[in-house]
Amino acid sequence: MKAMVVQEGQLQVATVDKPTRKMTELLINVKAVGINRTDIISRKGRGGYLKNPILGVEIAGVVEDNGNDPSIPVGARVMGLVNGGAYAEYAVMPADRAMIIPDHLTFEQAAAIPEVFLTAYQTLFWLGNLQQNETVLIHAGGSGVGTAAIQLAKQVVGATVIITAGSEEKLAYCRQLGADYTINYKEQAFDEHVLEVTDQKGVDVVLDFIGASYYEKNLASLKTDGRWILIGLLGGAKVDQINLQQLMAKRIHLKGTLLTPRSDNYKAALTTDFMQHAYPMFSQQRLKPIVDQVFPLEQAQQAHQYMEDNKNIGKIILTTE
Amino acid sequence: MKAMVVQEGQLQVATVDKPTRKMTELLINVKAVGINRTDIISRKGRGGYLKNPILGVEIAGVVEDNGNDPSIPVGARVMGLVNGGAYAEYAVMPADRAMIIPDHLTFEQAAAIPEVFLTAYQTLFWLGNLQQNETVLIHAGGSGVGTAAIQLAKQVVGATVIITAGSEEKLAYCRQLGADYTINYKEQAFDEHVLEVTDQKGVDVVLDFIGASYYEKNLASLKTDGRWILIGLLGGAKVDQINLQQLMAKRIHLKGTLLTPRSDNYKAALTTDFMQHAYPMFSQQRLKPIVDQVFPLEQAQQAHQYMEDNKNIGKIILTTE
Repeated sequence: MKAMVVQEGQLQVATVDKPTRKMTELLINVKAVGINRTDIISRKGRGGYLKNPILGVEIAGVVEDNGNDPSIPVGARVMGLVNGGAYAEYAVMPADRAMIIPDHLTFEQAAAIPEVFLTAYQTLFWLGNLQQNETVLIHAGGSGVGTAAIQLAKQVVGATVIITAGSEEKLAYCRQLGADYTINYKEQAFDEHVLEVTDQKGVDVVLDFIGASYYEKNLASLKTDGRWILIGLLGGAKVDQINLQQLMAKRIHLKGTLLTPRSDNYKAALTTDFMQHAYPMFSQQRLKPIVDQVFPLEQAQQAHQYMEDNKNIGKIILTTE
Repeated sequence: MKAMVVQEGQLQVATVDKPTRKMTELLINVKAVGINRTDIISRKGRGGYLKNPILGVEIAGVVEDNGNDPSIPVGARVMGLVNGGAYAEYAVMPADRAMIIPDHLTFEQAAAIPEVFLTAYQTLFWLGNLQQNETVLIHAGGSGVGTAAIQLAKQVVGATVIITAGSEEKLAYCRQLGADYTINYKEQAFDEHVLEVTDQKGVDVVLDFIGASYYEKNLASLKTDGRWILIGLLGGAKVDQINLQQLMAKRIHLKGTLLTPRSDNYKAALTTDFMQHAYPMFSQQRLKPIVDQVFPLEQAQQAHQYMEDNKNIGKIILTTE
């Protein structure tokens, strides 16, 4: 089969063996693939989390072999997380992560769901414990996880949503998705704006993809008993001079997380919970996958470059068709 | 009534009005008082958390006026948290925090229970989510909270307990209380020992009373998905540089906490949960209050000095009798 493999840090077309389905796995004919930052990190060889030499952690496609598992028929349209191997014509997926694609969605749209919606769901609700009537600050509002998080925070618990982004176009898009307050971080210190719109109280939850460069401002933006979910380091990892007294006095919960390296059991449990509490909202048109651009599989390298330029709103997708 | 008040940073005997019981409060004839580090911070005027000019957050005594609340009779021996005002002959206590003193315990022993056992319970179980078969690292093992935490971790969930302390006497005492491994931090880098006795895996939970000076070693001692409960800063607050990548890759939950400034509702809920899951173990002799020294109320200043010298194992108590 055709697959994209990394050669000297670049994605190249190659012909490789079809993957072999193990017990409790499905063999999927891949129709579309979502690109994630973890793929870029893996391509550059800076500590990828998965052993699979073929990149990619989420797919949408058609079940080719279900190992006689009657719960997911051959021919079913499914989407879900895979343990690498997505950038290819075929991939295997643990059956307990397969989600049936809602009828009204294309494969390209479906491939834009698993990683970002599951990550946003996990960070907002499992780790952030976001409640009705609470307020969440979502950085990188226009990113894949950002656009998913805005929708989930509004639709699942009706929280107040504040986002940051770097262009007026992104801010306007986030407002369309339901964001209550939007901040252009290039024009305004976001913590000041957050305190202003929250009557100086701050927010209950921060989704932090930025890390070091926002450390002090995130801390200033958080309420007492606030939950600070650290899920990316686009602004660096090293913070000079932190004061633990601030974390203690405000009783902050600072939680680092990553989804890709977690166990199969964790991903299955997260998928199950998501299926119950969020997935039905796609058919109700209350949640929608946000696709920015679709590239042919062979142009995966260009697609990575496009993500690195940070111009996308929502997901970048590869298609095999 | 007689009370100890702060004058120019020193505790002095004074005569003040008896406190007035409000609805849902009990008036208590105070027999014994537990001393806590928060009292020392308040005495020194460095940001006490309570408005009451009389120090002290926990008492044991006899109910003098119950406002006709039939659930706690006049004359009952009770212990519990108070919102300041403990260093006195009388104090008021919200009725939903009053715990009946087990028959076999003296007032001095009972006054050694509320703050440290509730704090240890909260940090180990509510925040640390410590489970059976998990391992906890408890710093300051000989301290009030340390001696309570060792017992609770062993008795409530049967966890493996590793402690640090600064003298052989304290280490031996902690072993008697149930600690599985003890480390003299003056003689050994504790993280190396922790990794050694956990097969290089690290611990699930750290109870951190130390802060800055242990930052790197605590991080090194924690397992992936470890919970790091920050509850004191005996080793300073300022860390020169931190690397958020380490927190994220290990998916650490770093939770700052303090008990005294929390809401009345929180303290009542914590007391209720503690009554159900830990309190019965005092009568079963599976948990015991650890009293190091008892001082007369009038010698509260000397008692503070004794705590500041860090020589105590367990609690320092004031008695009115």
